[in-house]
Amino acid sequence: MQPTPHRKPVVGIVIYPQATLIDFANPHTALSMFCETHLLWKTLDPVPMDIGFSVVPTTTFADCPENLDVLMLPGGFGSNAAMQDQELLDFVKDRGQRARYVTSVCTGSLVLGAAGLLDVYKAATHWGFYDGLAAMNISGVHERVVIDGNRVTGGGVTAGLDFGLTLLAKLLSEEDARTSQLVLEYDPLPPFQDGHPRCAAPETLAAAKALMTDFPERAAAIGRASFASRNPVA
Amino acid sequence: MQPTPHRKPVVGIVIYPQATLIDFANPHTALSMFCETHLLWKTLDPVPMDIGFSVVPTTTFADCPENLDVLMLPGGFGSNAAMQDQELLDFVKDRGQRARYVTSVCTGSLVLGAAGLLDVYKAATHWGFYDGLAAMNISGVHERVVIDGNRVTGGGVTAGLDFGLTLLAKLLSEEDARTSQLVLEYDPLPPFQDGHPRCAAPETLAAAKALMTDFPERAAAIGRASFASRNPVA
Repeated sequence: MQPTPHRKPVVGIVIYPQATLIDFANPHTALSMFCETHLLWKTLDPVPMDIGFSVVPTTTFADCPENLDVLMLPGGFGSNAAMQDQELLDFVKDRGQRARYVTSVCTGSLVLGAAGLLDVYKAATHWGFYDGLAAMNISGVHERVVIDGNRVTGGGVTAGLDFGLTLLAKLLSEEDARTSQLVLEYDPLPPFQDGHPRCAAPETLAAAKALMTDFPERAAAIGRASFASRNPVA
Repeated sequence: MQPTPHRKPVVGIVIYPQATLIDFANPHTALSMFCETHLLWKTLDPVPMDIGFSVVPTTTFADCPENLDVLMLPGGFGSNAAMQDQELLDFVKDRGQRARYVTSVCTGSLVLGAAGLLDVYKAATHWGFYDGLAAMNISGVHERVVIDGNRVTGGGVTAGLDFGLTLLAKLLSEEDARTSQLVLEYDPLPPFQDGHPRCAAPETLAAAKALMTDFPERAAAIGRASFASRNPVA
């Protein structure tokens, strides 16, 4: 299953309405220097992202290569709907069962979970949504990137950079990942130290939770997806 | 010139063909929680990014608000052409002379320079392109984010995260920037330490330079833009 030196790994990123753009744009950029990439959706019409503008898919589900080296799911506010979109879940399940790596960033792991692809695997998600993994009986691990077998899942939003470089090192080589990191000048210097609840002040945590207002809606979506994935209609 | 508490700061991001998506997508995401954002281009047709897919602008140059709190330019392989696109440069110069903050990420600073907006200012760019600033007699500073008066410029590609949070703290408040950082889970943990030439191995630096193959083309573009900005056609 190793790629030959002359074949670029094929990466399929499934997008959907109200996905978080940088969940996939950062790892896409890290990977695309060395890989063939597909931005996948049902049609080639522009898909609105949750930050307020749209991106254009490159490949429909119907035209997606049968065998992917990487299947990747981003998260975002639209992940609630994605978890209940049977056409999307069927496609994810189909490509996921043959992909070399089944991966996600942020709440993309909840969509993988809804497709039944994280049963018995450990996974990461955004710090605010580990209850969603737990509700699907998936073992959440509070790390930046979690690798369990061929499942590679990243934490929230910007974890996609660390995820993308980690995945590139596994897919091709550590040297290629180092080169990608240098081209991207990924030499972070955050102006504050509030990137995770363990180091943020209580008032910052409260403000962040207030911005992420879809908690009840997401809990309901997880409940429905969890039930559906375990009780498929024959 | 401070925004009233009831008015969201207005951010205008100028895109162009073959721009680097994450140069602006990362700061856009950091800012858009608290700001009104516009993705600006000549038309509303999809604009191809240098990583292989397109984004859809939200606002044409003609419909852009006259007074922006932030004017922002991303970089990318298309910055060579942008530096010679008179319609783009005229628009950037017009909005830039009235904007509260004139900003860029990566080689976006070369486009600002071509529009004459960095004369007498210190600025950052991608580590590989400081010669471009020097060719335009702009003082390059090798820092992640450079603030000089109302000019705020970020280093290469992923510096846009640090840039965006730094700018948000200036635009609104440090507390809002901390909240944005927490929502984005910006708690970086790069798998390698090769994000800048000062810490990368020589062979990694050579590989990165080989990937950034437009050096001669860019040097020529800078020469032409530099000449044009100092010798405008009356």
